[in-house]
Amino acid sequence: METASQNTCFGGIQGVHTHASTTCDCDMTFGLFLPAEAQDGPVPVLWYLSGLTCTHENAMVKAGAQGWAAEQGIALVFPDTSPRGDDVANDDAFDLGQGAGFYVNATQNPWVPHFRMWDYVADELPAVLAENFPLDMDRQAITGHSMGGHGALTLAMSLPGRFRSVSAFAPICNPTGGDWGRKQFAAYLGEDESTWAPYDSSLLMAERGFDGPVLVDTGTSDQFMELLRPETLAGAMAARRQEGMFRMQKGYDHSYFFMSTFMEDHVAFHAEALHAG
Amino acid sequence: METASQNTCFGGIQGVHTHASTTCDCDMTFGLFLPAEAQDGPVPVLWYLSGLTCTHENAMVKAGAQGWAAEQGIALVFPDTSPRGDDVANDDAFDLGQGAGFYVNATQNPWVPHFRMWDYVADELPAVLAENFPLDMDRQAITGHSMGGHGALTLAMSLPGRFRSVSAFAPICNPTGGDWGRKQFAAYLGEDESTWAPYDSSLLMAERGFDGPVLVDTGTSDQFMELLRPETLAGAMAARRQEGMFRMQKGYDHSYFFMSTFMEDHVAFHAEALHAG
Repeated sequence: METASQNTCFGGIQGVHTHASTTCDCDMTFGLFLPAEAQDGPVPVLWYLSGLTCTHENAMVKAGAQGWAAEQGIALVFPDTSPRGDDVANDDAFDLGQGAGFYVNATQNPWVPHFRMWDYVADELPAVLAENFPLDMDRQAITGHSMGGHGALTLAMSLPGRFRSVSAFAPICNPTGGDWGRKQFAAYLGEDESTWAPYDSSLLMAERGFDGPVLVDTGTSDQFMELLRPETLAGAMAARRQEGMFRMQKGYDHSYFFMSTFMEDHVAFHAEALHAG
Repeated sequence: METASQNTCFGGIQGVHTHASTTCDCDMTFGLFLPAEAQDGPVPVLWYLSGLTCTHENAMVKAGAQGWAAEQGIALVFPDTSPRGDDVANDDAFDLGQGAGFYVNATQNPWVPHFRMWDYVADELPAVLAENFPLDMDRQAITGHSMGGHGALTLAMSLPGRFRSVSAFAPICNPTGGDWGRKQFAAYLGEDESTWAPYDSSLLMAERGFDGPVLVDTGTSDQFMELLRPETLAGAMAARRQEGMFRMQKGYDHSYFFMSTFMEDHVAFHAEALHAG
């Protein structure tokens, strides 16, 4: 693992690190914010999964999360959203290929060799983090934005016991039912839609739910509302009596201006779960 | 004036607006954050002047200022750092020409026709703001980063009564004595160094000071320390018995990670002056 940069930030360190990923068969870069408390011992971890077109960097510089994480003594992990490189398959569309991994393991060519973001985020990167940094991997939580909200929700529900809490900003809630999902799942997973279901948070919510608190925020002026399909997840959460909050925030859109506004709430929500017991 | 975008943000509106500038003889773009209180009447204004290579956008998305401004009921103005356009003179260097206006009025060619950032920020943009938005122009304060810190300090000291408080993040403190300044002043103002002095905050501090509180933060690990020359301003502030604080922040560098860390302090500092009396 190589450290590309380190900046002092809110009393802690915002680092950027690169490692040779065996899962994605390419170099992968991630951001890691360590609060000052990490100098004295392992700290809890909040994962932040980003949306379409983003790298590890966008949320790291625009979401305004470090200040709140510093206040709570929590580390932040910012993974990339796909494998990258000249040898990695891509597509001209912004919503397929590099920058658009959708947190799935591809089973179809040309995506198979590298596009294994589910395994990368679920298995390889946690191992890299545990080995190299003072992180308490028994205290993990996860959040994300848009495609990353979809990733956070599906990972949290599919890995029971891994995350104490899950939240999402404007998540893609029902990818098997909308054009942010059907297009990508057909490409990455093939035409058999039964293979798509494990990657749909509304279906997972209906089937199993999450053993912990859930927080979802979406702006009422989100320009991608038809693609996000929040009503499916809200309905599934209510039908299951899922512990949690589903909020529609008046006037907010899909941007980082929306996300940064509610970041304090989300970090505090996760901190309560991470610091408990 | 045309509004390019508006995003709801911390209960207020982050707008981006473009107007035909007569001062710079080109279209100029600025960001303006209006807190919720602006719906009920004029609100105080905090100017934020950006550094080299920046447009109106960088601080707007990376400095994390809107949340604190919303809490204080204060508007934020993010001007561009230079005139722009295909017809506007430029230089291959990142620190001269477009993106590097240095908040001066150029007297030398090829810069004369457009590079009048002092007059733009001191006169034209305030008039545009006062005409179009619910701003209390009797309650203004100013801050900035690096080249923008230089701009904030020199404008504040040269326009007595305009700004109630001034602060700066890692400002260029003594441009007539360092390579971030001498190069640009020679190009924009010519070889007669007597014309440079009005644009040097250390010289202005020695000569007249500021009638109000001053706050300056610089990181001890700032990679551009030799160009910033903080010791000249600190010495001049102390010699004058200037009301204010000059802080060196251990471990911080020149980045937005540094600035965002101390943004809460700076907005609170200005809010105290803006809300007084």
